[in-house]
Amino acid sequence: MAQRHPDPTDPAAGAVTGEALADHLRAQATEFLRALRLHREGGAGMEPDGAVRALRRSARRISGSLHTFRPLLDAGWAEAVRPELAWLSGTLALEQAYAARLERLLQALHRLSGTPVLPVQAPGPAGVPPAPEPTGPAATERGKLAVGAAKAGALLERQLTLARTRAHSAALQALGGSRFHAVADTVALLASEVPLTPAAATADLRPLAAAAEERLAAAVTALPLMRAGHPYNAEALVHGLSPDPSPHPQDGPWHQVRLLLRLHRYAREVLHGDGGPVDVRLTAAGQALDRHRDASEAATAAAQAARTPRIAPATAYALGVLHADQRHEVEAARFAFQRFWQKQAVGTS
Amino acid sequence: MAQRHPDPTDPAAGAVTGEALADHLRAQATEFLRALRLHREGGAGMEPDGAVRALRRSARRISGSLHTFRPLLDAGWAEAVRPELAWLSGTLALEQAYAARLERLLQALHRLSGTPVLPVQAPGPAGVPPAPEPTGPAATERGKLAVGAAKAGALLERQLTLARTRAHSAALQALGGSRFHAVADTVALLASEVPLTPAAATADLRPLAAAAEERLAAAVTALPLMRAGHPYNAEALVHGLSPDPSPHPQDGPWHQVRLLLRLHRYAREVLHGDGGPVDVRLTAAGQALDRHRDASEAATAAAQAARTPRIAPATAYALGVLHADQRHEVEAARFAFQRFWQKQAVGTS
Repeated sequence: MAQRHPDPTDPAAGAVTGEALADHLRAQATEFLRALRLHREGGAGMEPDGAVRALRRSARRISGSLHTFRPLLDAGWAEAVRPELAWLSGTLALEQAYAARLERLLQALHRLSGTPVLPVQAPGPAGVPPAPEPTGPAATERGKLAVGAAKAGALLERQLTLARTRAHSAALQALGGSRFHAVADTVALLASEVPLTPAAATADLRPLAAAAEERLAAAVTALPLMRAGHPYNAEALVHGLSPDPSPHPQDGPWHQVRLLLRLHRYAREVLHGDGGPVDVRLTAAGQALDRHRDASEAATAAAQAARTPRIAPATAYALGVLHADQRHEVEAARFAFQRFWQKQAVGTS
Repeated sequence: MAQRHPDPTDPAAGAVTGEALADHLRAQATEFLRALRLHREGGAGMEPDGAVRALRRSARRISGSLHTFRPLLDAGWAEAVRPELAWLSGTLALEQAYAARLERLLQALHRLSGTPVLPVQAPGPAGVPPAPEPTGPAATERGKLAVGAAKAGALLERQLTLARTRAHSAALQALGGSRFHAVADTVALLASEVPLTPAAATADLRPLAAAAEERLAAAVTALPLMRAGHPYNAEALVHGLSPDPSPHPQDGPWHQVRLLLRLHRYAREVLHGDGGPVDVRLTAAGQALDRHRDASEAATAAAQAARTPRIAPATAYALGVLHADQRHEVEAARFAFQRFWQKQAVGTS
């Protein structure tokens, strides 16, 4: 299904045309349908989780191409399909996101407490399984921190497992509903016929791909990279105890760059086909931004858990340490992104 | 009082002998007595705090020279005097240390909450002055974090102000007691007569100063500098929630290097006299280690405050964030030290 296209970095090569876009969209639609079939079969040869992942993977790529190469596609169709694909991949992403968030937070608690926080027993009505208690009054005082970490872990496990279960039900419900069936029908049509504009077949894809890259570059330029390049700038924790309902608006531009980088990567896939070169620096920069997003959301989850009524002070203390630890991870991810990005800029200039 | 000595880095220059050590000890003893007089006069032309600082400054230098150049001094005398000087400078240091710790923690809370935490009113029996409350249930939930920061600030203010007041009383009591008078008498004798060994007057100081520098270099070599040079290694927070009574044994070697660096600096002062060159890198490395020590102790103070019985969860949460913030400062200080030190090694090799 994958086709080799001319090397788009070679000025002597012919233009990559709308035909390549149609190939790519057909291939992704076929992947989508295959993943859907595997999901319905309960995962013969593919984990059910893997099938959902594959669904999301192709939905994101189709959606990305619809955005980047919009002028080459039937406008009404593209505008109608894109939000539906976004809804689908958003709905399917949540379960996995909650699971990953819990794992990240429990691993961090493990690192911070020096004792395994995993696995936590399913809590009874009393809420929290008893942690191994040290003995004697001094040991009790000392032991509170460890108990706090264990209780914080149990609380997060409870809250995020609940959220995950709900997300799982919502995903199942979505996959069985009429809204999803409409999306699946649209993708099934796309697998055979791509609604290109009349001019698209011979149009050059590269200016549109270049525009996506420029949007990325412009968004990166607006990031505080200079500051991020100075380690331990303590920026990520600023206003961490602020009463502001969204205390970390500073994360927004980084999340935006993460999405633009993904669009740029998908546009490269359209241009190069499956056999194209892998830009390891782009991959590394993207992974740093994934880590940024994950740590940002984990920090928020820790802060939210700390607002649970009637928790013990030791639990709240552990959640405070955990929150700050994850905000520190946010800062570390920015530092890493900045390093990869500067290397890249030097490498391609 | 200060004498110029031959440049000890100049191989053609003559040796710096025990006479220079005697000059230095006499000068520091004289400084000590002057500071003591100013302290007793209530600080004419010098803040009372400044007088205590000057007392500590000369006590540390005398003590350091007694250690580094011990073979050139009457052994029994040096061994008897040194612990007394250490006791004195330790006792006098506490009040200032508690004040600085409180200031550091309140400034960090201010940075973290985006609202001024200073000045906090003297708390009444209820414990904590009411923070400006947001209105409505959602705002109340949100506002808890800011209230937590304010309460944490008030709690730290209460605890560290109490500790400071006690340290102040202890220092005053020490300065009025017989143990201090014995130290002052010893220093007064030192100002006129330094108990050098018979061979010391013509002995070369440089091998002993070089040995102090070698002890420093060996201790630095044992530090995990490679790790410290990788930003965001998350090392300083490891075991931050551990039940271990001293969860940060990792700080010990850095504190030790701080003391050895100070001894090296004092030995340089003896060799070069007051007119000697200032090694800015040595100063910067020393300041990084001061910051390391201060942040380490501030983090401990935040953790201790979190163990206060019956505090609100929001207060404990804020103290957890604050603790982690200061442990990040510890890590940042190690990174800074490592950078200064590597520069220095390159610069002098």
